[in-house]
Amino acid sequence: MTATLDRRKDPARGSEIMRFPASKPLRLDSGAKIENLEIAYKTWGELNTDKSNAVLICHALTLDQYATGSNPVTGKAGWWSKAVGEGKPIDPARHFIICANVVGGCMGSTGPASLNPKTGKPYGLTFPVLSIGDMVRAQAMLLDGLGVETLFTVIGGSMGGMQVLQWAADYPERLFSAICVAATAKHSAQNIALHEVGRQAIMADPDWRGGAYADAGVRPEKGLAVARMGAHITYVSEDALQRKFGRGLKRDGLSWSFDADFQVESYLRHQGVSFVERFDANAYLYITRAMDYFDLPGKHSGKLAEAFTGARDVRFCVLSFTSDWLYPTRESREIVRALNAAGCRASFLEIVSDKGHDAFLLDEPEMHAALTGFLKATAKERGLK
Amino acid sequence: MTATLDRRKDPARGSEIMRFPASKPLRLDSGAKIENLEIAYKTWGELNTDKSNAVLICHALTLDQYATGSNPVTGKAGWWSKAVGEGKPIDPARHFIICANVVGGCMGSTGPASLNPKTGKPYGLTFPVLSIGDMVRAQAMLLDGLGVETLFTVIGGSMGGMQVLQWAADYPERLFSAICVAATAKHSAQNIALHEVGRQAIMADPDWRGGAYADAGVRPEKGLAVARMGAHITYVSEDALQRKFGRGLKRDGLSWSFDADFQVESYLRHQGVSFVERFDANAYLYITRAMDYFDLPGKHSGKLAEAFTGARDVRFCVLSFTSDWLYPTRESREIVRALNAAGCRASFLEIVSDKGHDAFLLDEPEMHAALTGFLKATAKERGLK
Repeated sequence: MTATLDRRKDPARGSEIMRFPASKPLRLDSGAKIENLEIAYKTWGELNTDKSNAVLICHALTLDQYATGSNPVTGKAGWWSKAVGEGKPIDPARHFIICANVVGGCMGSTGPASLNPKTGKPYGLTFPVLSIGDMVRAQAMLLDGLGVETLFTVIGGSMGGMQVLQWAADYPERLFSAICVAATAKHSAQNIALHEVGRQAIMADPDWRGGAYADAGVRPEKGLAVARMGAHITYVSEDALQRKFGRGLKRDGLSWSFDADFQVESYLRHQGVSFVERFDANAYLYITRAMDYFDLPGKHSGKLAEAFTGARDVRFCVLSFTSDWLYPTRESREIVRALNAAGCRASFLEIVSDKGHDAFLLDEPEMHAALTGFLKATAKERGLK
Repeated sequence: MTATLDRRKDPARGSEIMRFPASKPLRLDSGAKIENLEIAYKTWGELNTDKSNAVLICHALTLDQYATGSNPVTGKAGWWSKAVGEGKPIDPARHFIICANVVGGCMGSTGPASLNPKTGKPYGLTFPVLSIGDMVRAQAMLLDGLGVETLFTVIGGSMGGMQVLQWAADYPERLFSAICVAATAKHSAQNIALHEVGRQAIMADPDWRGGAYADAGVRPEKGLAVARMGAHITYVSEDALQRKFGRGLKRDGLSWSFDADFQVESYLRHQGVSFVERFDANAYLYITRAMDYFDLPGKHSGKLAEAFTGARDVRFCVLSFTSDWLYPTRESREIVRALNAAGCRASFLEIVSDKGHDAFLLDEPEMHAALTGFLKATAKERGLK
């Protein structure tokens, strides 16, 4: 690879984004390819002289490369600041940490909002539909560009965990270990259905304009907000909503109207409104589609274990949460059973939490302890500090 | 009551609808009232000379008075034909069966689509926001008009079950027995949140026009379809979706587009499209709101048992389903504990089913056997055949 790395101002966001311009087109599972691919990424820490301490963090559906530190777009702390940072399980003092915006995303990597070099206009729906495999292939190109041959570990939660499994299937020789959190090896019918409702909400918004809203200078904000509100419910648990809000009212008494009477209503409306400020509607369509298409056993004649036959030397850690109803523990168990059947080394922990799917992003000491323990033991094997 | 009952052609639907015109306004919990109230209803069987065999069926959110027989609007069998009909647990040969469209509904009862007598235009959002208590008060007026003083039983599932509990709280002296299926005594934070997403989907549709779409000759069909798609997922179970559809495709291979690739996607789209043909968007707003406002313990200083202090002579039957995640069994247990604490006679059964909330509408032999057993024993006490 002769790619050069550069830092450029992002005209759209006004913030400094690190972008990797790929030196060759990205081949896609659909048969299409993306020319002039750019991958927005962020790194923390330094690659050691052995080049043995690289950690790739894979992000979830609506997240980005700002895993820790400050997110320049939202002004908030990075989405995994509780797990990544000084003194945290993934630590820039010990690890060379890389996190990249997925291809198809909207935080600087080439996606449906990018300009199509052939037309000079945003791709919109002319952007090719992607797979999780395509996202991982783009990450592998980035690692080549960064001079990172092998990863000490690849880690991710939710869609990030799907990427971890795809890494193990496609590039096992580049992995020393892999950590899959709150994920699945294939998207269930219910999860496809939930995503489809969100997509239909976006596409029902007249401002979506068949995906060409950027040309018209509008955005399908209402549709995207509805999609996010629906999705957000699936990221938390009934118990968490009940504990946090119950039937608590915003004011004294009911309004006998359609105003937000209940605290949970305002909370949800806020989730929708704040999401549209930071996310692109078409990117939401493309990334949910990639997740729905994810079916690792399906790619191996229905036998998930066969996806991992090349990964016998990879140390796996699989984590799930008791109250995650999006990717319930039984789906993690299927992964672990397949890893065992493939002869891989796999540790598995179901963490008791009532916080639902998003528990992996939250303050979950048991998860952080599990990550610390696994990474410490694995570092010893790898000869790291 | 001097109300007269009549049968009239429904100009909107072209089908014959039985309507009860109330002789006085309906007082509402909000303090407002509805003038010129009409309640659309349907009866089967005959009231016996003792007037002791009347059964009131209360319907769920999107259902109607056509509990059995043929639904003239959809052309399909009534929604509870499996439980109601000749040889079924509720049988017109033994019972005088009444089912009424709730006030606020769109199947002939006064609702937001009705003409406001003061303006001659459809109410739209000028219709008063309702409660489950208001629905029950309207039903009581209908029973007065029908000359039915007491009910052998009042029965309903989902929102119908909420009405059953409200009957027990407000008119216990008119009940011999009560059957509450797959319901709750108060709407949870998650259920309020799920409803709020549906309402926001409707209100985000520009064709909603602040609720005045009828004046403009349009309908917020896309928004209502999205609301229905999201809600439908909550009516079934993950296992049922997985068993029925899994990751089954409509065609060979993926389309690499946003067409419906998966069978579960077409199924869901069909649920949305067919729903808008039979339901009014504003009615959806009003009825979901009434459900969200439902909080029977809240009305009694947080003590649900106090809602039932007048119902000590009523025989209760409470049924829940193991896979119902909308109104999980623990919410039925709360009802049963309160009934016990109030000194009521309550039988309770959790039915093992993987069909989710909608199990109560489906072929569930254990539920039908439970209904038959309870009604048979109760009939004996009541001196019925």
